[in-house]
Amino acid sequence: MAQDIKTADIAIIGTGPAGISAAITAKIRNKEIFLFGAEPVSSKVAKAHRILNYPGLPAVSGEELAQAYKRHLDELQIAVTKKRVHAVYAMGSYFAIQAGQEQYRADSVILACGMTADKPFPGENEFLGRGVSYCATCDAQFFKGKTVAVIGYTKESVEEAQYLAEIVGKVLYFPMGKEAVLPGLSGNIEICTEKPAEITGTMKVEQLKTDGKLYPVDGIFILREAVFPGQLVPGLKTEKNHAAVNLQMETNVAGLFACGDIAGTPYQYIKAAGQGNVAALSAVSYLNRKKETV
Amino acid sequence: MAQDIKTADIAIIGTGPAGISAAITAKIRNKEIFLFGAEPVSSKVAKAHRILNYPGLPAVSGEELAQAYKRHLDELQIAVTKKRVHAVYAMGSYFAIQAGQEQYRADSVILACGMTADKPFPGENEFLGRGVSYCATCDAQFFKGKTVAVIGYTKESVEEAQYLAEIVGKVLYFPMGKEAVLPGLSGNIEICTEKPAEITGTMKVEQLKTDGKLYPVDGIFILREAVFPGQLVPGLKTEKNHAAVNLQMETNVAGLFACGDIAGTPYQYIKAAGQGNVAALSAVSYLNRKKETV
Repeated sequence: MAQDIKTADIAIIGTGPAGISAAITAKIRNKEIFLFGAEPVSSKVAKAHRILNYPGLPAVSGEELAQAYKRHLDELQIAVTKKRVHAVYAMGSYFAIQAGQEQYRADSVILACGMTADKPFPGENEFLGRGVSYCATCDAQFFKGKTVAVIGYTKESVEEAQYLAEIVGKVLYFPMGKEAVLPGLSGNIEICTEKPAEITGTMKVEQLKTDGKLYPVDGIFILREAVFPGQLVPGLKTEKNHAAVNLQMETNVAGLFACGDIAGTPYQYIKAAGQGNVAALSAVSYLNRKKETV
Repeated sequence: MAQDIKTADIAIIGTGPAGISAAITAKIRNKEIFLFGAEPVSSKVAKAHRILNYPGLPAVSGEELAQAYKRHLDELQIAVTKKRVHAVYAMGSYFAIQAGQEQYRADSVILACGMTADKPFPGENEFLGRGVSYCATCDAQFFKGKTVAVIGYTKESVEEAQYLAEIVGKVLYFPMGKEAVLPGLSGNIEICTEKPAEITGTMKVEQLKTDGKLYPVDGIFILREAVFPGQLVPGLKTEKNHAAVNLQMETNVAGLFACGDIAGTPYQYIKAAGQGNVAALSAVSYLNRKKETV
């Protein structure tokens, strides 16, 4: 193991109410943490118009709540690692975390990365790793000179499509929603406005079917806000696409906890914050037990 | 059934973070609620020195959080019914709630009444209803002219002991902690300073053993801050003295939910608030299902 891998007691993935709450409690309990997020506070929080049922903050606007969270993180000197986590591997005594192009290591992990409302496309799970990818940075090199489709859901999708276009032969770009729209034409990027419907192939991805056309492609990058939990952590038990947890926010993987939307409905700010607190305390207790048995 | 029994969709018992959160969410979902509490906001909240991990309210004092809760209740015009709930009976299609000397009726109930740190005295569970009582108002009449012990834990214990003294022959008063101390001598009340240890008898209560003495008594009133969950709701499944719940805060009794400390550890404000929200939404969903099947 290279010496420059960054390590911590607890890696927390996500900066919505669940992840922020977990980070606050873990920090107060004197644990070394990583807090991974695209932004210091998930942009989803600020987008909420007004939250009526966050007890103690009557009729708080999303913008105000995001600022209050930011202040709380700042007061406790909690820094956010601005990296997208692509995969978490349970290695037995620790977890290996792939974030951006780097690897991190932590003794326990708290998943608080929210939940995508989307369902996987037909063929998506089947061809994952065989042409389907969730990470341009990780996998662009495998498609040098080839044709790939990008199904983009986020602001970052645009940048990732542009990055892919520098490496691959051709990018077919499918913007899914306003935020993912490409600002203008861009070299070898073709903008497609149909709705992707199915991923087909034999051994590996060969076509993307839309509601009108059939595109021959070598690879498909699906860039959602959140990754499906079971794909983020191989071996994680899921229930209806959510991480399966108990009341202590424990998953089926020792040392791995989940909280907030990823751990199931209802999708509510205060419920997420409450579960983040429980997940952090369960992680602390896991670390203590681990120490005792070493 | 008398016509003057007050009814609601959801009865919420307790005004700590769990009960307040449940009330806020239930109110926003347009449900008729009762919110039962000794005070508008449980006095335990204001007593907290400083809470470091309530996300969005960095380093909030207990006093400030209590005020913020009070403001939130006021803004939503949620009134608190200042009554102690002694018992909740599942009647099949509704719940009967004994609070103070009145009866209330609700289609669903959320237990958010906190958790006593104490364990039952040896003999307490055995003699409950056979000389052991948790409610002076309810049971004083059964002990006219007799000798009763009062084991008092709260400020209200003093008043209840004084009320009992008006009816029974003699009160042996055991103050458990500073708040429960009787301000002065009072007629037929004898103040006992030993620690109660065991309740004994054959068919019914006959003696209270302390660490030094044996007191012959006809009844024993135990006046804790919170009642044990299994005693509050006959038939409620418990685990280690807590209400047994699942992730949706459902108990084993249809229409009955529990949240906060009563639903298990960790005892944390933000966890309680989160669970209160979930319990309220589960109750709403229970009421909707109930309506559909009628």
